Amino acid sequence: MSQYTLRIACSDEKGLVYKVTKILYQNQLNIEKNDEFVDAENNHFFMRTVFSGDVILQNIKEELLKILPENSHLELKEHHQKNVVILATKEHHCLSDLLVRNEYNDLDFNILAVIGNHDFLRPLVEKFGIPFHYISAENMSRESHEDLVNECLQQYNLDYLILAKYMRILTPEFIQDYNQKIINIHHSFLPAFIGANPYKQAYNRGVKIIGATAHFVTNDLDEGPIIYQDVIQVSHSKNAKEMAYAGKDVEKIVLAKALKLVFEERVFIFRNKTIIFE
Amino acid sequence: MSQYTLRIACSDEKGLVYKVTKILYQNQLNIEKNDEFVDAENNHFFMRTVFSGDVILQNIKEELLKILPENSHLELKEHHQKNVVILATKEHHCLSDLLVRNEYNDLDFNILAVIGNHDFLRPLVEKFGIPFHYISAENMSRESHEDLVNECLQQYNLDYLILAKYMRILTPEFIQDYNQKIINIHHSFLPAFIGANPYKQAYNRGVKIIGATAHFVTNDLDEGPIIYQDVIQVSHSKNAKEMAYAGKDVEKIVLAKALKLVFEERVFIFRNKTIIFE
Amino acid sequence: MSQYTLRIACSDEKGLVYKVTKILYQNQLNIEKNDEFVDAENNHFFMRTVFSGDVILQNIKEELLKILPENSHLELKEHHQKNVVILATKEHHCLSDLLVRNEYNDLDFNILAVIGNHDFLRPLVEKFGIPFHYISAENMSRESHEDLVNECLQQYNLDYLILAKYMRILTPEFIQDYNQKIINIHHSFLPAFIGANPYKQAYNRGVKIIGATAHFVTNDLDEGPIIYQDVIQVSHSKNAKEMAYAGKDVEKIVLAKALKLVFEERVFIFRNKTIIFE
Amino acid sequence: MSQYTLRIACSDEKGLVYKVTKILYQNQLNIEKNDEFVDAENNHFFMRTVFSGDVILQNIKEELLKILPENSHLELKEHHQKNVVILATKEHHCLSDLLVRNEYNDLDFNILAVIGNHDFLRPLVEKFGIPFHYISAENMSRESHEDLVNECLQQYNLDYLILAKYMRILTPEFIQDYNQKIINIHHSFLPAFIGANPYKQAYNRGVKIIGATAHFVTNDLDEGPIIYQDVIQVSHSKNAKEMAYAGKDVEKIVLAKALKLVFEERVFIFRNKTIIFE
Repeated sequence: MSQYTLRIACSDEKGLVYKVTKILYQNQLNIEKNDEFVDAENNHFFMRTVFSGDVILQNIKEELLKILPENSHLELKEHHQKNVVILATKEHHCLSDLLVRNEYNDLDFNILAVIGNHDFLRPLVEKFGIPFHYISAENMSRESHEDLVNECLQQYNLDYLILAKYMRILTPEFIQDYNQKIINIHHSFLPAFIGANPYKQAYNRGVKIIGATAHFVTNDLDEGPIIYQDVIQVSHSKNAKEMAYAGKDVEKIVLAKALKLVFEERVFIFRNKTIIFE
Repeated sequence: MSQYTLRIACSDEKGLVYKVTKILYQNQLNIEKNDEFVDAENNHFFMRTVFSGDVILQNIKEELLKILPENSHLELKEHHQKNVVILATKEHHCLSDLLVRNEYNDLDFNILAVIGNHDFLRPLVEKFGIPFHYISAENMSRESHEDLVNECLQQYNLDYLILAKYMRILTPEFIQDYNQKIINIHHSFLPAFIGANPYKQAYNRGVKIIGATAHFVTNDLDEGPIIYQDVIQVSHSKNAKEMAYAGKDVEKIVLAKALKLVFEERVFIFRNKTIIFE
Repeated sequence: MSQYTLRIACSDEKGLVYKVTKILYQNQLNIEKNDEFVDAENNHFFMRTVFSGDVILQNIKEELLKILPENSHLELKEHHQKNVVILATKEHHCLSDLLVRNEYNDLDFNILAVIGNHDFLRPLVEKFGIPFHYISAENMSRESHEDLVNECLQQYNLDYLILAKYMRILTPEFIQDYNQKIINIHHSFLPAFIGANPYKQAYNRGVKIIGATAHFVTNDLDEGPIIYQDVIQVSHSKNAKEMAYAGKDVEKIVLAKALKLVFEERVFIFRNKTIIFE
Repeated sequence: MSQYTLRIACSDEKGLVYKVTKILYQNQLNIEKNDEFVDAENNHFFMRTVFSGDVILQNIKEELLKILPENSHLELKEHHQKNVVILATKEHHCLSDLLVRNEYNDLDFNILAVIGNHDFLRPLVEKFGIPFHYISAENMSRESHEDLVNECLQQYNLDYLILAKYMRILTPEFIQDYNQKIINIHHSFLPAFIGANPYKQAYNRGVKIIGATAHFVTNDLDEGPIIYQDVIQVSHSKNAKEMAYAGKDVEKIVLAKALKLVFEERVFIFRNKTIIFE
């Protein structure tokens, strides 16, 4: 029996849970997990329902759209593994962690390819039998490089683009092409230490805690909706380089946890924030 | 308009959410928060719904009982402040934290009285205008002491009995009288270091992390359903006394967080575990 | 037998530990705890030694100054309880936590008085027999208000001035008068959310972690040397007010931990950072 | 210029730091990091000094032994990469994490080989060009299997033997052969949930926190000196299998952090505990 995830985001009104679950009940579907949240400030309703049963998706969708408010956002999909392409530069720790998870199916995804703006990580990627594309950014404009990346990506039918320590800033045009599909790991506890060299910034400020942030990428650098964050304690005895070393383990785990939440369709983006049903 | 909390625990079956929310919808009630959980292993369903509106509680209850499976556990109450009595011995840190929260309404409860088996904490309690009863346990049996405590408690209409570092073991009879109403703070990360002197045990074992556990009290000492736990890191440089000092802050915060969850009716007890809707 | 703490900060050079411990050994003093740190980037040496024995402090100091580099910072004091005055406004949680610790000697300090720019916290303070001074800031300049505060402080021989949720910005002149003696608790994980309403800022940004920071106060608002920080996880379901509530427990514990470190003379300030020997 | 680590553990007496640093100073050695700890309860002194300079190790050792109490434990070694062999079974997550760190020199060690009691992990290990020895334990006694493992290990000159989710209990004889050289990762916050299936135990107990523990292996199963521990929060919604999944990330990071501490010679074993200079 197939498993489906229904996701609804719409203006809040009385009876939404009742009306939605009525349709599922009348279609003899079995709810396995059901979560709702109302953003009271914005009067917005979010619902995620995992159910199983025999169903014609299009029919359920039509029934649901009839009872939902106008301009509702509705998703209803059969469970499927997410296809991703990873962009990386020279640092291996997030990429290698994802390659291993892919190899052992520890995360419900499928790495189609890795694109590097350096060739440095090719041996690692090829160990795992994943295609590696080296697209140098040297001696060309940001736009020209992105055109090459984009061209390369055309051959892949991807759900998400993962920036696994990809050390280049993307243009608004590129981001727009992959709206709500790009996930980045930033090596600080955002919004602290936006921009370059966050560990150096953290060292200079003398913080006692450092962290990492996985977020969707939007036009504002390091300002997209946050998916997951975690931190570790540091002391005066760690210099910027040692902080960076200690931070790597946080980065890779934060990225993997964020991807798990996204791949399980637990994450809603609403304005510049996320609603996450754990 | 009044706010109500509906809590249901019953065997799982198809359509429960639909049937329950239908009744709420037909009575024109406004759901503010709705959570469900199915314990798949035991096929048991849990639901907590906060709603507001004009309602005759008895009618709603009857309607709900008609559509729920037999032997369902159903609670439906208007929001009210919980009344508690605190038992303490000589350590002040959990008690003082609760007295301050009570004074400033930082926790949705009302401390009716404090009972001490020593007179030591009287000055603290009386600063806050709360009755303090000194019931010494010296020169008498455990049962005789509990009879005195019980007698004292008769004058109070209490929802919960809080053991705020109460250093006496309760008899099964006493516990039975306050079934699912006694909450204790244990000064270890249970189930590690059950019993006396957990910090001494932790020091001797050389652990790198210590913690505290708030739990409901059942007949098995330190074995009741866990509500909340937290930990802090320690190093070899802390002796047992210093661990105990550092642990006090964890204990008081863990107890307060657990009480908040319980007072907001977020905690279900099922067998020896808790389901908690946060 | 008395206990002393020796603190040295100076340019690093070979043999410092040897030369210092030689003097202590020749004076038959017993080292109980010894910590050193070298800031390699700035070639600066820090040492903290706790020792006991019979000693004429002035003689030891003179011996030490002979072997230390020029411009060394040297402190050598017999152990003593720190005297503090607390500034507060309307929020009680940090203040009440400190009042209770003072009452039970849970922190090695002595609260001489509390000054409020509102009269709201007087009943709490007076419960514990501590003088409360209400110095309203209404209808006067910042400087005039600080003059009154300063005048009030003259009667107290204080080691530290604690800002326990004191909701006023201090002038550089006031801060200069109490250089390295003012400790503040800021309700965010600095440097994130500097300035007013950090919980509102955190809510708007959609962070998944909030925190608190205890720091020395310098002229740059929220930019002084950080002593201690801690965080808790939050979810989309918490609004700004609930974040603020959850954050209060972090704030009070972070402030108390920072004060413990400072009172035990474990904290060195060097440029805009702290070196802390735990 | 070479870097050396000096480690001393002995009965405490006055002047030890002075006497040791005097020898280092007279030999014109440059102390880069110096830590001491006195276990007051047992009157035992621990010191770790990292220094650089030109030195004949044997001479320094002899000088030191002259001034140290009898039965002192003294180690003085030039910095060197640690050689390890890893034992594993079927779970890959700790092993793959270590293989990647080895590949990129993220941890100061050298994996000589991996031994599996199943052949399952061979492809992973061979991707990284590390020898994999499959030594099945089927149809033979524990002793016979260990004889084969031991025989295999003879070809390697190892500093440490890492149990990376090795699902077999070792005999006291085997452990004795590698005294203080075997490091294990246990998938619980020890001493909670000793023995088999700790996640199942944790699920059954309804804990709100799970963890992992890296420890030296001694004859008492799961009772050896603890090096590092960490935890994560879980809720009622996670079953035993999901707890195990979430726990894997903690396990691999805890093991790597413990190994870093050990490889940097920061860990002293004293009786059944560790003293760790971070």
